[in-house]
Amino acid sequence: MSKITLGRYMWERLRQIGVETIFGVPGDFNLQFLDSIFQVEGLKWVGNQNELNAAYAADGYARIKGLPGCFVTTHGVGELSALNGVAGAMCERVKMIHIVGQTTRAMQSNHMMIHHSIGSKPDHQQYNKASVPLRFAAAELWDIKTAPAEIDRVIRECFVQSGPVYIFIPLDLSAEEVPSSLLDTPLDISPTVDPATQEAAVKAITQALADSKHPILLVDALVKRFNAAPEARELVRKLNVPFFCANMGKAVVDETEEMYVGVWNGEISTPGVKEEAKKADLVVTLGYVPADTNSASFSRKLDEGMAVHINPFDVVIKGTHYPNTSIKSLLATLAKALPSTPQHTIPKPQLPPPRVPKDKDAKHITQSHLWPQFTSFLRPGDILVGETGTTVFGLCDITFPSDIRFEAQIYYGSIGWATPATLGIEIARQELERKVNGDGTNGVNGEKKEGRTVLVTGDGSMALTIQEVGTMIKAGLKVVVFVINNEGYTVERMIWGAQQTYNDIVPTSYQHLLPLYQHPSPSTSFHLATTKTELAAILAKPELADPPHLQLVEVVVDKMDTAWRLASQLAYRGGEKHREYMAKEGFVDTYGNWGLDSVTETGGVKWH
Amino acid sequence: MSKITLGRYMWERLRQIGVETIFGVPGDFNLQFLDSIFQVEGLKWVGNQNELNAAYAADGYARIKGLPGCFVTTHGVGELSALNGVAGAMCERVKMIHIVGQTTRAMQSNHMMIHHSIGSKPDHQQYNKASVPLRFAAAELWDIKTAPAEIDRVIRECFVQSGPVYIFIPLDLSAEEVPSSLLDTPLDISPTVDPATQEAAVKAITQALADSKHPILLVDALVKRFNAAPEARELVRKLNVPFFCANMGKAVVDETEEMYVGVWNGEISTPGVKEEAKKADLVVTLGYVPADTNSASFSRKLDEGMAVHINPFDVVIKGTHYPNTSIKSLLATLAKALPSTPQHTIPKPQLPPPRVPKDKDAKHITQSHLWPQFTSFLRPGDILVGETGTTVFGLCDITFPSDIRFEAQIYYGSIGWATPATLGIEIARQELERKVNGDGTNGVNGEKKEGRTVLVTGDGSMALTIQEVGTMIKAGLKVVVFVINNEGYTVERMIWGAQQTYNDIVPTSYQHLLPLYQHPSPSTSFHLATTKTELAAILAKPELADPPHLQLVEVVVDKMDTAWRLASQLAYRGGEKHREYMAKEGFVDTYGNWGLDSVTETGGVKWH
Repeated sequence: MSKITLGRYMWERLRQIGVETIFGVPGDFNLQFLDSIFQVEGLKWVGNQNELNAAYAADGYARIKGLPGCFVTTHGVGELSALNGVAGAMCERVKMIHIVGQTTRAMQSNHMMIHHSIGSKPDHQQYNKASVPLRFAAAELWDIKTAPAEIDRVIRECFVQSGPVYIFIPLDLSAEEVPSSLLDTPLDISPTVDPATQEAAVKAITQALADSKHPILLVDALVKRFNAAPEARELVRKLNVPFFCANMGKAVVDETEEMYVGVWNGEISTPGVKEEAKKADLVVTLGYVPADTNSASFSRKLDEGMAVHINPFDVVIKGTHYPNTSIKSLLATLAKALPSTPQHTIPKPQLPPPRVPKDKDAKHITQSHLWPQFTSFLRPGDILVGETGTTVFGLCDITFPSDIRFEAQIYYGSIGWATPATLGIEIARQELERKVNGDGTNGVNGEKKEGRTVLVTGDGSMALTIQEVGTMIKAGLKVVVFVINNEGYTVERMIWGAQQTYNDIVPTSYQHLLPLYQHPSPSTSFHLATTKTELAAILAKPELADPPHLQLVEVVVDKMDTAWRLASQLAYRGGEKHREYMAKEGFVDTYGNWGLDSVTETGGVKWH
Repeated sequence: MSKITLGRYMWERLRQIGVETIFGVPGDFNLQFLDSIFQVEGLKWVGNQNELNAAYAADGYARIKGLPGCFVTTHGVGELSALNGVAGAMCERVKMIHIVGQTTRAMQSNHMMIHHSIGSKPDHQQYNKASVPLRFAAAELWDIKTAPAEIDRVIRECFVQSGPVYIFIPLDLSAEEVPSSLLDTPLDISPTVDPATQEAAVKAITQALADSKHPILLVDALVKRFNAAPEARELVRKLNVPFFCANMGKAVVDETEEMYVGVWNGEISTPGVKEEAKKADLVVTLGYVPADTNSASFSRKLDEGMAVHINPFDVVIKGTHYPNTSIKSLLATLAKALPSTPQHTIPKPQLPPPRVPKDKDAKHITQSHLWPQFTSFLRPGDILVGETGTTVFGLCDITFPSDIRFEAQIYYGSIGWATPATLGIEIARQELERKVNGDGTNGVNGEKKEGRTVLVTGDGSMALTIQEVGTMIKAGLKVVVFVINNEGYTVERMIWGAQQTYNDIVPTSYQHLLPLYQHPSPSTSFHLATTKTELAAILAKPELADPPHLQLVEVVVDKMDTAWRLASQLAYRGGEKHREYMAKEGFVDTYGNWGLDSVTETGGVKWH
C-alpha cells in the first residue's frame, strides 16, 4: 500500500481543491512539513516578511480565487502574530486555512519548557485556546488515524462557512504516514441545502417580486464571498430593475450593466442615488452586511416589511424566515424561476450631473480631483485594492469600467491589510489568468493585455506592513502601488485630535523603498505626484499601463483634505458639534455644508 | 470636589509608579483618552508603526525600568495584532500593561455591527476572550464606580506577578469622571510575603550553605524581572563562591565580579565552565528558568538533592518547598543573615585558554571572529540587545565589561522582538540617566559620557519589524544597530532545509533604510563591513563611540556560518544523524567535531 506523510496529504488535499500557493513564515515546528509542499505538483511556497502579512496575503488570495487562502505559522510566536489577520477573515467571511506547526506530542504531554512556551509547566495548547473565538472549525491533530478525516472536515467547513479554520499539527505527527489512496475520495465542499425550504423561499421571492411595482436590488459582499457573483449578475440581468451596491458589494456585478444606479451608501450617497433607492416598494438585498462602515453609520434604514434578504444561509422575506438555504444555488434557482421577459419596465434611473467641487481650481492634488482619475486609469481585467482610510471612502465614490474586481476590508477595517493582501491578490490573479489563456495573458476584450493589480493605500496604513512590498518585488509582481502621502492618519484627525501628535506618523521618503528591497529598476519605477499636472503625466506613462516591474506612485495630498464621503459621514454621525470641530480645524469642505444638503435625517446616530 | 476623567486617572496612576512613556497606535476607540496623556506632567506619548511593535517596545521599556511598559491599542484590530508581544511578556515575566480602547458600552450591549467587530450580532468581547490565556489579570471596565479600584488592582498585579495585565476601557467610560482625591492614596505595589515562611526559608538556606564544602551560585533572568539584581549582587559578594549565569541571566550581576566564572550553558559551555560548575556539592539558583534555550536543550541537569532554588514566589531546598516568599526581600534577608566573613574559601576558578577557531585566518567576517569584538566595543553604561537567532548564541559566549545590561528574549524567542524592544530600551535608558545626573548625561566611571543602546540583530529577524527603525529615527534616538546579513534564516538552515527556498528572505539593501525614514545624515551613519579589516575600522569610528544619530552597521557573514554554540547544541540534541546533515550541507564547524569534545552526555535528548 502506497503511503505518504500526513504533511504531504494535507498539501495534496489543498491542491485538489485548487490551491496553488501557500503563504507563511517558516519556523522550527513547521520546517519539515514545508518540504512536502515542493513534492506536490503545481503547489508553490511564497514566504512572507512576517506572520500578520502572511495572513493578509492569504486573505487577498482567497478573495480572488474563491477558495481558501492558506498560510503556515509556527507554534506560539507565529500563530499569535497572525491572529488579527485571521479575525479579519472571520469578520469578512474570507476562506482561510491557518496551519500551525506545533511542538511534538511528547513535548506537549510532558509540558516541556520548549522555546515559545509559557511558564514552568507550560500548556502548549494555550495559543490554540486563544484563537478559539476566531475560527469556524479546527483540526487539533493528535492521532494519525483520525487526522486525514479531520483535515478533510475543516477544509469543507472553510468552504461551507466561508471563513477561517485552523489546522494544528504537531511536528512529529506531520511526518507519520497515511495511505495515499485516501486522496482518491474527492472532498465534498458543497454546502448543505434543504431543497424544500429553498424551493419555498424561491417561490415566496418570486411572489414578492410579482406583487411589487418598483423592486430594486442591493448587491453586497457576501455574494462574492460565497462565490455567487455570476448568479447575482444573472439575476440582475433577468430582473432588469434598478440595482445598487453597498460599499462592500462594489463591482461584484459590473457597474456597466444597464440598470446600475450607484453605491447606495445610506444618507451619504452620490446625489440622486439615495433618491432612486427610495422609490422602491421592495428592496432585495443579496449577501448584505449592514455594518456601520457599509451603511454610512446605519443610515441606510430598510423597512423590513418591504425587504427581501437573500443571505448566505437563509432568506428573510418581509420578516418571514426561510432557513437552510444556500445563496449560490438559491440565486441560480431564482434566476431560472423568473419569467424570461422582465416583469417590470422601470426606466433606467438618470442621476443629476456631478456637483462641482469648491476646490476644483486647485493646482495641487485634491481628493475631489484624485479619486475620479481612477475611473479612466482602470481597464477591464484590473483588480483594485483599496485600503481602509480616506482611500476607501474615495474609491467607493467613483464608477468602474467593466470587469473590475474591487477588494477592501470595509467591515473589519484593519489598517495595513491592503499591502500584503495585494501580494496574495496579484498571485491569485496570475493563477486565474494562466487558466484562461494558458500563456500568461488574458484575453479581455480581445486584447492580449494582462489585467493589473492596482493598490491604493495611505501613508498611515502602509507603515504597518510596508515590508511586504519587498516580497512583491522579490516575487517579480508587477503591481501598481499608489500611496497617498498626507502626513499621517487623516481619518483620525477628522474624528478627534486634528493636530495632536498621535495622529502623525514617521515621515517616510518612499523613493527609497524600492532600492531597499533591491527593485531591478527603482528610478524608472518610482513616480512622485504633487500637482494635478504631474499626476496626469504619471497616469499616462507606459510603465503604469504595462508595468515591467512593480510601480510605486507617491501622491502628495494635504493632510486636512479628505474624501467628501468621509467628511459627510462624520458630519452626519457627529451632528452640529462635530461639524463645528471640522470647520474650526480647517478640514476641506468639498461641496459646502459637508455635503449634507441632501441628507434627510441629520443629527447624530443614537448609540445610547 | 475636584474631578478628573477616568482616562486621566489611569495615566496619573501610571505616572505615580514611575511610568514616563506610553507606547501604542491610535485608533478611533482610544483617541479621546490619548488626549489626557498630555495633561499629565512628565508623561509622554511615543506612537509606533504597528501594534506588535508597540508591545515589543513596551516590553523593552519595562525590562530596563523595572516597572510596567504600557501601550495602547484599539478594539479588535489593534489588540489582536499585539497579542504575540504580550505573550512574550507573559513567558518572560516582563511587566506590561496593555490598554485597549473599546467600543462604547451602548455599542456593546446592543451588539452593534461597528467596524472591527465580527458577525451580524457581534460580541465585542470576543477579543477580550482571546487574550484570557495571555495575561495575569484584567480590568474589564464597565462601571465608573468600580473602575478606579479595578485599575489599581491590575497595576498591582502587574508588579506582583511581573507580567502582562490588561485594561479594557470602553470609549465612553474613559470620559466619565472620578474624584481626583482618589489619587492621594498611594498604590501598594509590594508583594505579599509570609514573614514566617520566609524566615524559615532563609534559615534553611544558610544551613545548607554551611553544610556545603563547595557551593556555587547560578544567576538567572527572574532575578532582574523581579527587580532583585542589587540583592543578588550583594549575595554574590557576601558568599564569595564561584558564580555562574544562565544565558538569560547574563550580566544580571556584573561579569567583572571577582568570583564570576562564566555562562554555564549545560553541556554546551565555554570549555572549563561546566567543569567548574560540576565541582559543586550545592547549586543555589536565583530566579531560574530551565527552558530548552536557556539550558542547551535541558543538558544542565541539576541534582535536586543538592540544589537550592530561590524562585520569585517560593524556595525549594533539596526538594523541600517553602511557599509564599518573595525573591527580592528574601535575597536581601539572606544576604543580611550571612556572616560578614565568607564561610568558604574556594579559589577563583581559572578557565583554560580560549580555543583557536579553525577559520581564524579568514579575511571575511566569521562568526568566531565577530562576537568577541563586542567585548571591547561595549563600555560601562551600555545596554546590549540581542535578537533571537545566531546573534544570541554568539553574544552569550563573550564576557562583558562592568555595568552592562543585556536583554534578549531567550525563552519566548519571537524573532522580530529586538528592533522595537530597542526603541523602548533606549527611551527607558534615557529616562534613567536623566535621573542620575539631571543633565542628560550619566557619570559612569566619572566620565561625562552617556551609555549607549546597542542592538545586534539578524537580517531574517529584522525584516519582521523593520519599520520601527523609523520610529527610532523620528524620536532622535542615538542607538547603534548591527544587522548581521547572512541571507536568511541561518538558525533554521542548521535545523532543517539548509538550501530550501523557505529559508531565504527578501534581499535587503540596508543603506536605503535610513533615507527611507528621513534620517538626518544617512551617508555618515550607515556602515558596511564585509571583511575583518572593515569591521575593525567601523568599530573604531567616533560615530559609533558617541553617536550623533542612529547608526546602522551591516555586517556581512556567510550563510553557512554560525555561532559554535548553536551548532554544538544542535549537534548534541540531534545526535549523529544531525551532525552528518550539518557536515554534508557544509556548515562551518568552528572548533571541529561541532565543539562536542568536552560533552559528557552525547546523543539526542529524549523527547519521547
